[in-house]
Amino acid sequence: MIIALSGGVGGAKLALGLSRIMPPENLLVVVNTGDDFEHLGLSISPDIDTVAYTLAGLANRELGWGRHDETWSFMETMEALGGETWFRLGDRDLALHVERTRRLKNGESLSQVTHDLCRRMGVGPRVIPMTDDPVRTRLLTDRGWLDFQDYFVRLKCEPVVSEVRFQGAGAAKPHPDFMAALADPALEAVVICPSNPFISVEPILAIPGVRQALTGCAAPIIGVSPIIAGKAVKGPTAKMMQELGMHPSAGTVAKRYAELLDGYVIDHRDMSQVVSIDAKVLLAQTLMTTMEDREALAKIVLQAADVLKRRKVNTRLRHRTAGDGA
Amino acid sequence: MIIALSGGVGGAKLALGLSRIMPPENLLVVVNTGDDFEHLGLSISPDIDTVAYTLAGLANRELGWGRHDETWSFMETMEALGGETWFRLGDRDLALHVERTRRLKNGESLSQVTHDLCRRMGVGPRVIPMTDDPVRTRLLTDRGWLDFQDYFVRLKCEPVVSEVRFQGAGAAKPHPDFMAALADPALEAVVICPSNPFISVEPILAIPGVRQALTGCAAPIIGVSPIIAGKAVKGPTAKMMQELGMHPSAGTVAKRYAELLDGYVIDHRDMSQVVSIDAKVLLAQTLMTTMEDREALAKIVLQAADVLKRRKVNTRLRHRTAGDGA
Repeated sequence: MIIALSGGVGGAKLALGLSRIMPPENLLVVVNTGDDFEHLGLSISPDIDTVAYTLAGLANRELGWGRHDETWSFMETMEALGGETWFRLGDRDLALHVERTRRLKNGESLSQVTHDLCRRMGVGPRVIPMTDDPVRTRLLTDRGWLDFQDYFVRLKCEPVVSEVRFQGAGAAKPHPDFMAALADPALEAVVICPSNPFISVEPILAIPGVRQALTGCAAPIIGVSPIIAGKAVKGPTAKMMQELGMHPSAGTVAKRYAELLDGYVIDHRDMSQVVSIDAKVLLAQTLMTTMEDREALAKIVLQAADVLKRRKVNTRLRHRTAGDGA
Repeated sequence: MIIALSGGVGGAKLALGLSRIMPPENLLVVVNTGDDFEHLGLSISPDIDTVAYTLAGLANRELGWGRHDETWSFMETMEALGGETWFRLGDRDLALHVERTRRLKNGESLSQVTHDLCRRMGVGPRVIPMTDDPVRTRLLTDRGWLDFQDYFVRLKCEPVVSEVRFQGAGAAKPHPDFMAALADPALEAVVICPSNPFISVEPILAIPGVRQALTGCAAPIIGVSPIIAGKAVKGPTAKMMQELGMHPSAGTVAKRYAELLDGYVIDHRDMSQVVSIDAKVLLAQTLMTTMEDREALAKIVLQAADVLKRRKVNTRLRHRTAGDGA
């Protein structure tokens, strides 16, 4: 079994690659829910939706969100009625939000709803929210504290970010299947997908118990850099790093995950970064433009997992033996 | 000023006719809200919507509900997701429900929301709900008590109706502008549109104060029969009359409104009904197929109002004089 920690687009691409080169039912995708929000009375989970649409082959690759087979009558009419239109909701996408909202209000958990809706969409891997408890990413900016979607969509990532908080994370319980998988001896690897560390991966790490479970995990943890040649493929990762006083590079991201990583995959173009990274570094083409790119990167990650798992097991055996002798 | 009491399709057609032959701002359409319901977490007001879409020139004449420029991506996707699809919601129609629901939750009244959304859609006449308080039409049938939309849409009016109740009506306050208009000396007429008496007009009459205000109203009250030659143009009016032990006819409907009516417009085909009706009866073509039909019927109603108003004023003057002399 493989666990993939994912935010939106970048993570979803790698998860898709993984799902195509392994039995999809052995892939558990744990998705950030810090971006979730209520809009027009609807419960919206942008990262879960991007992952689900991507894995179902429904994602809109041009837009980077929503569905490829979308129509826009709802949004056009909403505009004519003077409603809020800054968060674009397609007619088909809307069905997912309305149905999820109805079920959540009916007492089902986000996990249950996600599981069933993914099944209906034909998603092979298991997709679970990092937690069923509400966690909301909030950003301190030069325009004050902002909700994530306000920053990300409404204000197009323009405000300068000085602090990131995951409201509710401290009281949240990690998804039990996530914890169980981390403790499972059959686990082959944990993949930290090339998602934004500050707003996609760290909300997952902020949930009590997750860091400890990752540190204690027998399987290797392999990160994939979301930064290539100092730039994010998509989104505000590099911009945020600069605003938070960091140099935007693959190495800087590795430092954020430092004690967790057994292996780290960076782009060929970032060879110079190797020296600054503690984990075992693999060079690869990390830009995923085509489906072949997604599968090729996924293969490299799984090969790395295989090598690193044997190494990690040996190291642990050595430690245990040393401990026994003390 | 003219007041029109309306349910859905039939009432909306006559209201449209009226709005085209008089200054639309002088027309106040008071709409039944007994059909309103919550579905998929949305507040839906079917009669208000039919009236608004009809007056805005957006109505779907083939379907008899919704918009003519509709698309169905939402519903298709909802079906694929296993959601409820018995109440058909078009992509554009949905914008109205989502926006209304959001505003109602935000504390606005149904009147305020209706007023603003009608303005945005370019509706000329004033459209108001009969009340801002919740009233829900419930039907006792051979399948037990049913919510109106369950009976009307989900079960396609198949159950046999033995009783109709307007839950909440006793505690509801009539819309203040409706009451004010009824007391206004400038009021020319109250038109009871050709809507189902049991489920469209009587919910309005069931609100405390409405019957008294209509009885005391100086302007003539003119009904238009929803039954032509023993049949309803649309919907279950005739079927319900039979199930409730009444003979389905224009005369039977007139008896329901008996003490309220000053005039009653029936179809030429129902000439034999004249003898059984207390009010002044006008024969006309009441089937509204074309726009010309709507306008022609509206003209007859306004002409009748003019004649009957003079008569009603004279009768009142006589009564007052007689009263003074007593």
